Amino acid sequence: MIQFQCDYNEGAHPLILQRLAETNMHQTVGYGEDEYCQNAKLAIKEAIKCPNADIHFLVGGTQANTTVIAALLRPYQGVISADSGHINVHETGAIEHAGHKVLALPNVDGKISAEQISLTLASHFAEDGPEHLVQPGMVYISFPTEIGTIYSRNELSEIYSVCKKYDIPLFIDGARLGYGLASPACDITLADLPNLCDVFYIGGTKVGALFGEAVVFTNNRFSTKHFRYHIKQQGGMLAKGRLLGLQFLTLFTDGLYLNIANHAINQAMRIRKAFENKGISFLVDSPTNQQFPILTNEQIEVLGKDFLFSTWQHIDEGHTAVRFCTSWGTLPESVDSLISAIEKL
Amino acid sequence: MIQFQCDYNEGAHPLILQRLAETNMHQTVGYGEDEYCQNAKLAIKEAIKCPNADIHFLVGGTQANTTVIAALLRPYQGVISADSGHINVHETGAIEHAGHKVLALPNVDGKISAEQISLTLASHFAEDGPEHLVQPGMVYISFPTEIGTIYSRNELSEIYSVCKKYDIPLFIDGARLGYGLASPACDITLADLPNLCDVFYIGGTKVGALFGEAVVFTNNRFSTKHFRYHIKQQGGMLAKGRLLGLQFLTLFTDGLYLNIANHAINQAMRIRKAFENKGISFLVDSPTNQQFPILTNEQIEVLGKDFLFSTWQHIDEGHTAVRFCTSWGTLPESVDSLISAIEKL
Amino acid sequence: MIQFQCDYNEGAHPLILQRLAETNMHQTVGYGEDEYCQNAKLAIKEAIKCPNADIHFLVGGTQANTTVIAALLRPYQGVISADSGHINVHETGAIEHAGHKVLALPNVDGKISAEQISLTLASHFAEDGPEHLVQPGMVYISFPTEIGTIYSRNELSEIYSVCKKYDIPLFIDGARLGYGLASPACDITLADLPNLCDVFYIGGTKVGALFGEAVVFTNNRFSTKHFRYHIKQQGGMLAKGRLLGLQFLTLFTDGLYLNIANHAINQAMRIRKAFENKGISFLVDSPTNQQFPILTNEQIEVLGKDFLFSTWQHIDEGHTAVRFCTSWGTLPESVDSLISAIEKL
Amino acid sequence: MIQFQCDYNEGAHPLILQRLAETNMHQTVGYGEDEYCQNAKLAIKEAIKCPNADIHFLVGGTQANTTVIAALLRPYQGVISADSGHINVHETGAIEHAGHKVLALPNVDGKISAEQISLTLASHFAEDGPEHLVQPGMVYISFPTEIGTIYSRNELSEIYSVCKKYDIPLFIDGARLGYGLASPACDITLADLPNLCDVFYIGGTKVGALFGEAVVFTNNRFSTKHFRYHIKQQGGMLAKGRLLGLQFLTLFTDGLYLNIANHAINQAMRIRKAFENKGISFLVDSPTNQQFPILTNEQIEVLGKDFLFSTWQHIDEGHTAVRFCTSWGTLPESVDSLISAIEKL
Repeated sequence: MIQFQCDYNEGAHPLILQRLAETNMHQTVGYGEDEYCQNAKLAIKEAIKCPNADIHFLVGGTQANTTVIAALLRPYQGVISADSGHINVHETGAIEHAGHKVLALPNVDGKISAEQISLTLASHFAEDGPEHLVQPGMVYISFPTEIGTIYSRNELSEIYSVCKKYDIPLFIDGARLGYGLASPACDITLADLPNLCDVFYIGGTKVGALFGEAVVFTNNRFSTKHFRYHIKQQGGMLAKGRLLGLQFLTLFTDGLYLNIANHAINQAMRIRKAFENKGISFLVDSPTNQQFPILTNEQIEVLGKDFLFSTWQHIDEGHTAVRFCTSWGTLPESVDSLISAIEKL
Repeated sequence: MIQFQCDYNEGAHPLILQRLAETNMHQTVGYGEDEYCQNAKLAIKEAIKCPNADIHFLVGGTQANTTVIAALLRPYQGVISADSGHINVHETGAIEHAGHKVLALPNVDGKISAEQISLTLASHFAEDGPEHLVQPGMVYISFPTEIGTIYSRNELSEIYSVCKKYDIPLFIDGARLGYGLASPACDITLADLPNLCDVFYIGGTKVGALFGEAVVFTNNRFSTKHFRYHIKQQGGMLAKGRLLGLQFLTLFTDGLYLNIANHAINQAMRIRKAFENKGISFLVDSPTNQQFPILTNEQIEVLGKDFLFSTWQHIDEGHTAVRFCTSWGTLPESVDSLISAIEKL
Repeated sequence: MIQFQCDYNEGAHPLILQRLAETNMHQTVGYGEDEYCQNAKLAIKEAIKCPNADIHFLVGGTQANTTVIAALLRPYQGVISADSGHINVHETGAIEHAGHKVLALPNVDGKISAEQISLTLASHFAEDGPEHLVQPGMVYISFPTEIGTIYSRNELSEIYSVCKKYDIPLFIDGARLGYGLASPACDITLADLPNLCDVFYIGGTKVGALFGEAVVFTNNRFSTKHFRYHIKQQGGMLAKGRLLGLQFLTLFTDGLYLNIANHAINQAMRIRKAFENKGISFLVDSPTNQQFPILTNEQIEVLGKDFLFSTWQHIDEGHTAVRFCTSWGTLPESVDSLISAIEKL
Repeated sequence: MIQFQCDYNEGAHPLILQRLAETNMHQTVGYGEDEYCQNAKLAIKEAIKCPNADIHFLVGGTQANTTVIAALLRPYQGVISADSGHINVHETGAIEHAGHKVLALPNVDGKISAEQISLTLASHFAEDGPEHLVQPGMVYISFPTEIGTIYSRNELSEIYSVCKKYDIPLFIDGARLGYGLASPACDITLADLPNLCDVFYIGGTKVGALFGEAVVFTNNRFSTKHFRYHIKQQGGMLAKGRLLGLQFLTLFTDGLYLNIANHAINQAMRIRKAFENKGISFLVDSPTNQQFPILTNEQIEVLGKDFLFSTWQHIDEGHTAVRFCTSWGTLPESVDSLISAIEKL
């Protein structure tokens, strides 16, 4: 059974395992204050062209989201998100457990717009008695979104302008950041991000690492002086922080991060094309590593014999949208097999 | 500089790295529902002789403590702990962030007694108006304690009896469990633990793994049916859960876990003896992998030139208690060097 | 300026003030364990025909909602509510501050249906990996709703059946309960409520008291043994609990509660009729003490000279829905003046 | 049975009831934005000689403590308090429920010193890795303390200096503030308080009101701009806020607040003297409205026949410290009876 159901089916890029083995008995201090972490931060600052960035390494996405949001909000504030946002639907209420409401706005293709956000903020502060309502205190978007779409430079700029106007932070969840940046449809680069938001994270778990997300505060609009306290309190301070540092150092040496993201996108485009060639339509036009073809029950049964993929959304009696993911670890020959099976449908 | 300041200075036992490399491209499902996790659970159940145990793998100690405690307490309840307990002093208020008071009792050599616990519980329920006070809802102890001491079988039995009498759970933090069990002073085995508490965890981070703690619910006195929701909400559900499964499977194959713990204890006893031979006294009589000699300022300066160790407690103008730790990864030749330096003091 | 903008413009029913004065120097114990509270509970149990009810007096509605919800949910659970529900929009995230997500369903005329609730629950438990989502753990509805509508006996029965099927509690917010029961459109009585939900509260603040809500647990499906701890923790345990007891005792002596509710409904119906006679339509067909006529800008300006009322919802350039409330304290002559003004529009 | 067990045995000062009756049908807006609240704030600002104070009215002490502390702390911070402080022992973990640790220091006669506080703060910031510990983020003291003692002007000044040095707020719980200020041992006045702390509250519940505490932010060192959101979120925004305004307006008209406090102190001193005359000693030298004589079992039994008082602290087999409270409502003839009974012991 070949697995395409998610982008974390395998371990890690072999170079990462190799570096772990090479450095295994090297003694370091704990909690992310070792030289691997320091060097990884330097490498990332260089890659994003933001020498004053404040960078922290966390283990996973829900942890990164919760820690950043809990650190930046005051108790009476909530976070604006697409209703389809990860924090709104797939984190078992971690944000609410930290005390904050997710202020969900209806998404279009997984995205929310500057106009929606602006209306939400304007409407709150125009209230007679706003203190009876949760105050919108930050904006959360993901890049790419849960359904693989990406914001354009223009859309990001407009959203960020609204945030600056209301003096609230813009936070970009980059769990799949590499796959967004490597997309042919993407009109921004990694080095643009510091100018387009206050904080974002570079996803490692889904892009080549065993685990790990690099949270990047891009400026001083919002104090991050005590962020390490937040990490520890949220249970996210890894004793052997070096593991995170070493992985990100490897990913940000010789362009590995984007190289492997490119690989995933290439494989995803091959799959997409195979479905298109069969005249199969998609739930959404995703230019990234997740593809959502709408299949008949019969097609699902046939493909399901040899391949694992996710059921995504019921369409009608006879059709369901499913998800195929590629990743750094997708073998071209696995995609060959899948394409061949699609051709035979 | 040779490092003895903590027990997480190195990566992982080489066998673990080897197994990670061997299985790297094997595709599995995520979130701990893969076969490595299943097999690791079977191996642990076998090792603890508790076929009905409910086992979950978490990334770190603070995360494990918070998740277990948040899962078992009701909002108005607090957790009884030694004042020196990790949850009371070294977790940046993670327990309080989850809404619960730590009910700290004065420790003797890092431990609390059945009598103290019994008095606390009796006194609460004897109150006229107990609802003005936090209700003690569980007992947390660590084995070994923060200062390396261990509870005897008898002490554990008595504490557990009190817990059962008041129908509250006993939770044992086993971040360094292996080093407790491998101690010559220890009169229990791993297989005794299921009869001595309701939940405990087997520390991996400090005992051979890259990271990871195996939380074991030993019985059905307290429902753990929804524990996976708690894990996810606390940001502790690792996407590639297989990494945790594989590490524990390796540690619980051919007795590796206790073997490497024995190694650490042997090295610790060599260090202890070297200090004793010099007539140096200790802050506490620790039979495990942490040793706390009381050194003069001069001795600290001399040893500090070649070795890293932790400052633990100010004793007087001229003396300070320091901490030397060993671990699975401590090289005998590093200990040779240290002993030689001690002899020259 | 005559005020109709809410139903808490005045102090309390004169009988309550009289009783406060009469009993002022009578010494009692604190925290709701006095004889007034005991007698008030007996009077309520008699009125609701539920001798085993467990009753607690709280100061206000947000406090009552938060305390009940926090007491009944586990950390990973959320509460199902209409998107227009008070807990979802007008409590500054108090529920989220207590750690729980409000699972908002789209309302129709302020109400949600058994079918919607059933689908939500069925869909959650049918998930492959429900632990990534907040588990629906209770249902919250209000009677009357935020916009004055009421559930029929049949609707309540169906909702309660779904709750019992999934073994979760049904909680009815009765901040305006009296005004619902006194409505000519209402087909249930106070004594029916214990058979239609697990917990509800009888609103005092808006129905004759200075302040106070009587929370009633109607059965033992969900333990309320430790509810007083929750009250205290939420800052809701009034030192002079007698004030709450005395007020509810007065309201539940000689049928005062329903008598004054009837008065409010009569006055509301007079206002409604006056608008109808002018051919003015309503945002919603409310049979209770809140009326939502849709007025032109000019009508709003004219009525605004002598009367205070709330702006409720923008309809179009020229029209806005506004709210007129009556209460136990609405003077018939104030309504006379308003009607006369409406007639002149 | 004459009751001395607490200082909230009766209703309210008759003048307050009279004013409630007089204003009962006067219509006002809700939530504390009415004219009574405005005027009460002016009266308090005048009394404390602090025209820029920011004042908010809350219903009770636990609510006031939790709201102020939750508003001023960041998630990783805790509040320094005497171990005997109300927030540490008598609020069912309300502070922890809001996410914060109470950093308890050992009390001497109910008080903590500037030196203790200074050491705690210095020690935290001197840590190598302070982010593993809760950061002390504010200081809470009560005036008078739980056992009736009061801080001198000098003690307060020193504590406040430490707070200012570390840029953290000093919060004074004044649940019994009047009884402290009216004490013959007190060397400060109400108007001194704004210069001695950042926020305090003037207790109404125990000093003449039905209920209510006036929270006073004395300066702009710490933003209180959004404090009303906090109040609402904590369930503390009384719909009929006018009730709080009117009560404080009455208490701060013609010096009523201090007059009735003086009455309570006079009665307490009479009781104290009666015990002293019998050669009975006290648990603590309290110069305020609470007196803690140490009685024999026999004396307790005899007095217990006609009087209610609190058991406070077990001393030895034959002796127990008990508490007698006076208040604004204590009748001189009740004290006459008590004194006569003491004389007969």
